[in-house]
Amino acid sequence: MTTHTSTVIDPALLAGNRKTLAGYQAQHFQWECRDGVATITLNRPERKNPLTFASYSELRDLFSQLRFAKDVHVVVLHGAGNNFCSGGDVHEIIGPLMQLAMPELLMFTRMTGDLVKTMRACPQPIIAAIDGICAGAGAIMAMASDLRMGTVRSKTAFLFNRVGLAGCDMGACAMLPRIIGQGRASDWLYSGRSIGGEEAERSGFLNRLVDPEKLLAEAQAWAHDLASGPTFANGITKTMLHQEWNMSIDQAMESEAQAQAICMMTEDFNRAYQAFVAKQKPVFQGN
Amino acid sequence: MTTHTSTVIDPALLAGNRKTLAGYQAQHFQWECRDGVATITLNRPERKNPLTFASYSELRDLFSQLRFAKDVHVVVLHGAGNNFCSGGDVHEIIGPLMQLAMPELLMFTRMTGDLVKTMRACPQPIIAAIDGICAGAGAIMAMASDLRMGTVRSKTAFLFNRVGLAGCDMGACAMLPRIIGQGRASDWLYSGRSIGGEEAERSGFLNRLVDPEKLLAEAQAWAHDLASGPTFANGITKTMLHQEWNMSIDQAMESEAQAQAICMMTEDFNRAYQAFVAKQKPVFQGN
Amino acid sequence: MTTHTSTVIDPALLAGNRKTLAGYQAQHFQWECRDGVATITLNRPERKNPLTFASYSELRDLFSQLRFAKDVHVVVLHGAGNNFCSGGDVHEIIGPLMQLAMPELLMFTRMTGDLVKTMRACPQPIIAAIDGICAGAGAIMAMASDLRMGTVRSKTAFLFNRVGLAGCDMGACAMLPRIIGQGRASDWLYSGRSIGGEEAERSGFLNRLVDPEKLLAEAQAWAHDLASGPTFANGITKTMLHQEWNMSIDQAMESEAQAQAICMMTEDFNRAYQAFVAKQKPVFQGN
Repeated sequence: MTTHTSTVIDPALLAGNRKTLAGYQAQHFQWECRDGVATITLNRPERKNPLTFASYSELRDLFSQLRFAKDVHVVVLHGAGNNFCSGGDVHEIIGPLMQLAMPELLMFTRMTGDLVKTMRACPQPIIAAIDGICAGAGAIMAMASDLRMGTVRSKTAFLFNRVGLAGCDMGACAMLPRIIGQGRASDWLYSGRSIGGEEAERSGFLNRLVDPEKLLAEAQAWAHDLASGPTFANGITKTMLHQEWNMSIDQAMESEAQAQAICMMTEDFNRAYQAFVAKQKPVFQGN
Repeated sequence: MTTHTSTVIDPALLAGNRKTLAGYQAQHFQWECRDGVATITLNRPERKNPLTFASYSELRDLFSQLRFAKDVHVVVLHGAGNNFCSGGDVHEIIGPLMQLAMPELLMFTRMTGDLVKTMRACPQPIIAAIDGICAGAGAIMAMASDLRMGTVRSKTAFLFNRVGLAGCDMGACAMLPRIIGQGRASDWLYSGRSIGGEEAERSGFLNRLVDPEKLLAEAQAWAHDLASGPTFANGITKTMLHQEWNMSIDQAMESEAQAQAICMMTEDFNRAYQAFVAKQKPVFQGN
Repeated sequence: MTTHTSTVIDPALLAGNRKTLAGYQAQHFQWECRDGVATITLNRPERKNPLTFASYSELRDLFSQLRFAKDVHVVVLHGAGNNFCSGGDVHEIIGPLMQLAMPELLMFTRMTGDLVKTMRACPQPIIAAIDGICAGAGAIMAMASDLRMGTVRSKTAFLFNRVGLAGCDMGACAMLPRIIGQGRASDWLYSGRSIGGEEAERSGFLNRLVDPEKLLAEAQAWAHDLASGPTFANGITKTMLHQEWNMSIDQAMESEAQAQAICMMTEDFNRAYQAFVAKQKPVFQGN
């Protein structure tokens, strides 16, 4: 039986400045957190929730801080007004980009890529709840999430080539082929066409289709289900899905042997065993 | 025409101690071999065929020896009593793990990973025949097989997070995403939920669904079909599927040029050509 | 606004000897080019369009030159007489291979692999239009294309093991698993069986199924649609799908930040923005 305690060293020393994020006051979107499930709502419904330079950087910073938050276990990402996100705002992002020289353009593309990096680096599973328009950087944020719930009427478009750009935006040429297959990803990226919910589900992009009326509630219920699991272990699952991306099978085997041995030292593993023996449902605590 | 002989050096010197395994006497499961097709039956049906420390290590050792066996060309893996495998036994594995310190835990997780490594390293294609429960390490053994035949009522569950562990068990975070896609794999691994046969087939996990009554017979018929093919070449196919896992496309191209040139030196290639010219069906001999 | 010109240095100095290929005179297949869309027709319908040593090497050389062609933006690949391609000719390729020693065999397998390498290295998206037989090296050419349109009656067979060889031919063990998943690819490669159009579409191999009567016209319409897009950016998409094949996610993110910043310096990006502001459809020019 594991008898370790984790309080000898103040975790604050290891965990950066922020230990709690449930009460975070967001500036450029909505943030609510209840029972370990945070909901980010992109909230400019009159424009279908576009991203701006400011919302990009705030999202990047928030996901970066989530790495250290003890009180957030799952994140739900969705948009207000029956649309997910229309991507980079044409007037507030695309227009200004026309004025920039290469060093500043690279600063911009690195910032957008950093948002994906921080979404992948935080231990919390991210559930995208997708209705209506999910386009450009919006499609990328859905792709960079761990799980995707959508509606039949959702329209996902990696529309970069429609605005004269390449499909290789924010990791799409690396990640989309692994989600839906290289052939389907080639079609989606070369054409920039809009993918309906049924095709997206059939292709493996959306995990589930639900009634639009119930989308947010269903996504949050899914999140609460994950939040009631062994959240430390779930964070290790996320880390390893990222870490093993381009390892050989044999390297992955050693990495998983180490990662799972770490999880076997947690109290949650012991709690599950004790609950099984007592014929009860385990109550996990994320340590 | 190739005129090489392979008898100048005694292959036994190259092939380790065991040259034949058809008559292997298994201790912790059943082993039968007929016409080059071996069938492993996990055989504790009253407990849905769990694995124990002893069966883990015997399976690992057996698959390790299969690398040198001349008389086994395909392996069928299934479970007795309408279930595939319930995974690591709660009382015989999970309980004892609670008592172990880190070095021993790592020995255990490495042993389980070694089973997957040896399943991938042997040249014989492995066909998992899956009915009923296929859970935990059982789901992993199915995943680590080359081909999977199942039934509608089969229930596959990567249930590690249900017992307080991470989804990164025995290579699951590396291999499952490549089989069913990264999005579906995330769902299966974070939730630990049970996947029915139809969803498993649709997702690309199961290759075929068959009538439960005929499952073992159909899997063995499939195995005999493969065993009647060019078994040396099939072993090279398996080697290269493993070897090219994380190569670049250009590296893979050179590796395949070399591997296929090796196969072009075999008699089986010549036999196929001669049979074609003679308008006959080739009879392959695996050399 | 970007104001760069690309005429200070004669591009011919950068672009090799050939700057135009629209008028190319093919020897061992048909080549036609209209409005930037080239169509390659394998044209020995009485034998279901097999490949020969000569057609292999001409195809390799042509795709190699396409890297520098300014006047070809998309390639359609198809076969005459309701079949795509039956692969390497038994009499003109397989037979002679029987006579070769290892160094020459390796020269042959490297040449076939080089065809795939040049198909992946040219910036033009390649659309395979697949009806009837699509077997062996024909299936490989379909796989090595970017997009695949087919018919219900198409029969795709990676039949290498039927001729005594391994499935690792011309990159199949690397590329096919990424297109249709590792489990399905194992089945297709170990069995060499013939895959009908519906299974191929459902598996993610074929992007679309169309009426056989309209196959070529539909494929060319798709090609013209891509050719009217930002072709420089589409070439970058293709480059990055290749380049990021075995990068880590974080490496891919930096690579895409650089690649997309390059595209943001193009006139096509500016054209798309100006068209949006003017509520017009952009007219891309590939620079």
